[in-house]
Amino acid sequence: MTPPDLPTLRDLDTRDPLASKRAEFLLPGGVIYLDGNSLGVLPARVPARVEKVVREEWGVDLIRSWNKHGWIDLPARVGARIARLIGADADEVVAADSTSVNLFKVLSAALHLAARKDSRRRVIVAEEDNFPTDLYIAQGLAELLGEARAELRLVSPAGVADAVDDETAVLMLTQVDYRTGERHDLPAVTRRAQERGALTLWDLAHSAGAFPVDLNGAGADFAVGCGYKYLNGGPGAPAFLYVARRHHASAPNVLSGWMGHASPFEFTSRYAGASGIRQYQTGTPSILGLSALDAALEVFEDVDMGQVREKSLSLTRIFIELMRPLCARHGFRLVTPGDDERRGSQVSLAHPHGYEIMQALITAGVIGDFRAPDILRFGFTPLYTSHEDVWHAVQTLETVMREGRWQDARHAERNAVT
Amino acid sequence: MTPPDLPTLRDLDTRDPLASKRAEFLLPGGVIYLDGNSLGVLPARVPARVEKVVREEWGVDLIRSWNKHGWIDLPARVGARIARLIGADADEVVAADSTSVNLFKVLSAALHLAARKDSRRRVIVAEEDNFPTDLYIAQGLAELLGEARAELRLVSPAGVADAVDDETAVLMLTQVDYRTGERHDLPAVTRRAQERGALTLWDLAHSAGAFPVDLNGAGADFAVGCGYKYLNGGPGAPAFLYVARRHHASAPNVLSGWMGHASPFEFTSRYAGASGIRQYQTGTPSILGLSALDAALEVFEDVDMGQVREKSLSLTRIFIELMRPLCARHGFRLVTPGDDERRGSQVSLAHPHGYEIMQALITAGVIGDFRAPDILRFGFTPLYTSHEDVWHAVQTLETVMREGRWQDARHAERNAVT
Repeated sequence: MTPPDLPTLRDLDTRDPLASKRAEFLLPGGVIYLDGNSLGVLPARVPARVEKVVREEWGVDLIRSWNKHGWIDLPARVGARIARLIGADADEVVAADSTSVNLFKVLSAALHLAARKDSRRRVIVAEEDNFPTDLYIAQGLAELLGEARAELRLVSPAGVADAVDDETAVLMLTQVDYRTGERHDLPAVTRRAQERGALTLWDLAHSAGAFPVDLNGAGADFAVGCGYKYLNGGPGAPAFLYVARRHHASAPNVLSGWMGHASPFEFTSRYAGASGIRQYQTGTPSILGLSALDAALEVFEDVDMGQVREKSLSLTRIFIELMRPLCARHGFRLVTPGDDERRGSQVSLAHPHGYEIMQALITAGVIGDFRAPDILRFGFTPLYTSHEDVWHAVQTLETVMREGRWQDARHAERNAVT
Repeated sequence: MTPPDLPTLRDLDTRDPLASKRAEFLLPGGVIYLDGNSLGVLPARVPARVEKVVREEWGVDLIRSWNKHGWIDLPARVGARIARLIGADADEVVAADSTSVNLFKVLSAALHLAARKDSRRRVIVAEEDNFPTDLYIAQGLAELLGEARAELRLVSPAGVADAVDDETAVLMLTQVDYRTGERHDLPAVTRRAQERGALTLWDLAHSAGAFPVDLNGAGADFAVGCGYKYLNGGPGAPAFLYVARRHHASAPNVLSGWMGHASPFEFTSRYAGASGIRQYQTGTPSILGLSALDAALEVFEDVDMGQVREKSLSLTRIFIELMRPLCARHGFRLVTPGDDERRGSQVSLAHPHGYEIMQALITAGVIGDFRAPDILRFGFTPLYTSHEDVWHAVQTLETVMREGRWQDARHAERNAVT
């Protein structure tokens, strides 16, 4: 099969039903940005919204804005916008804190719930290659609770399904592996885990906004996710968490701060959690962060997530096809599954000089990122990435390799936030 | 003693060494704002900083900003600015998360530390009138750990010192009571608690930026505090936490997210906390929130906190003096101690119709707030409140009372975020 040529890709862009969305982002000049899976591009409507929040809501209305501008409900309103993208009901998702902090909440809630039904169920099953912060949070919680109440069991990705047994409290997985880009079959894995009596906790960091997720369709129990990747909420944007409604009455929030209280403004000394999703809030929410994320999510309001998935697969498929000759010529190895069903919205390539190659590629104007030990990651964000971008990215990489530019790129710190 | 008159107060303002600071804030028009203890006023330099972060750092430099604009060190840099205001070393404070989340971290660290030395020490001693979220967080942690490892013991403010015994792990206090405005003698209470073998954890929500605090001088162990009150960091600004350096090696962070890891970008699967204050970070930090707070803290860079305290006492003393005739005439009762040493930077008055009176006062252009059951709170922020403001506030309250305007004000929700 011959790889597509540039006119063919331009033609795909012309017929792209999401093409108009690109104008809703302030794309950086002079670069092709394939790192929206690390930090999404600035949506055009965000700067004005943030300025209004700073100058008018904070600056003029001050404390009155908690009511006047609905700051108090912002975590729930933003949660409701995210809910639509991940197949949850509006009152099952709230935006708050960081992914790590939210994971601590839902993981401890899951352990509590599991132990109440069957005290033998105390094991958290997770992949050894899961995103580190997920593992770190689980380790911290397991150490705090002690062996008798919690144990973290790490398994290989292939062994996940079989690792769930009658000691398992919760299966904790990231749907799309941050390194390989491989995607779990969320409904199938959820079903198998639940058949064995375990709860499921999904990290949707690389899912939400990248393709449709159907948490309720799958009957999933808990989920968390990130606001600054495919949702474009800005650096360190508030994260979100999902708790299936059936668990709201029996899965308490251990980070029981006043914003999760049933009546926070009665200032009673005894905690009583709110009845719904609001109970999973903790402290005073970041209004600047939530407002930016809220404006960013407006971009999704008229978007069909089915079309997002279709375009995502088209972009990644074509990138893979265009890369095949480079793999042969320059020693890249495709890490991400070629099978559409098993791929998220990123493509990863391994190369022994991956770090230097990515540095040279960034210098040449194509921004992806590097993950140890040898992975070059390319994220494809259907709302603002075109097929033509894919073409130019691959051409640039070919040039970098052909001219050996990467051999000069042995500098710079290995820092970048996923 | 006759209360001061307006010319006298104007004269005080003329001689105020902090007078020029007022111009560094964008004060809301047409109101006297005495609620900076709930949400501080917008510093003039914040909007431009936030716009730069949004449009340039996020919008143009995108993922590269973690290095290029030092996002990765922002929590530590902001922490260092706060450290100066609370008598800590630069590497003992970090800005992160919310006060509630930070409290969970340092409280569990304190329990861990205490139990390692003496397993009988498992009690958290706190005031029954402490700010609710502090109590809620302690309740959540105590329930999670179970009776054998943690117990929350609530005592009256007067009984705090005597409640510390050989079962006490940590004495957890808010230095200034959010309702009464009464201030603890932090060095004396710290000393007494430590003499009895307990650790101390101070909530500085109503202290940081309001007057000088000397944590290291007092030998305090742990502290948390709020970014959006006297520090003016904006609604839901990141909070901060302090851990005395001597505890860094032995007081781990149970919310062990990747930003607290010794080498977050090595993406190892096993958590290993950073050695210093950075270990108390958790997830990806809110860059918008931290940037606003950072700019807000620049206002303090050339400020002598001794002068802040002097002006604060002058403002609150004069407010109390001016209020005495109103107390007699209209039934207000002064709740805040008249003794300077025992007062923070707010004055609270009780009145059976406190809620309605505050509503009418706000309508008349003087913004304080109400706290159940009957407290009117007035916060005095020395960097932007003048003595003349105090005069007009009292005159307006006198008018509201004389004309009985508060009798019409039985509407509006009882919401406001402390």
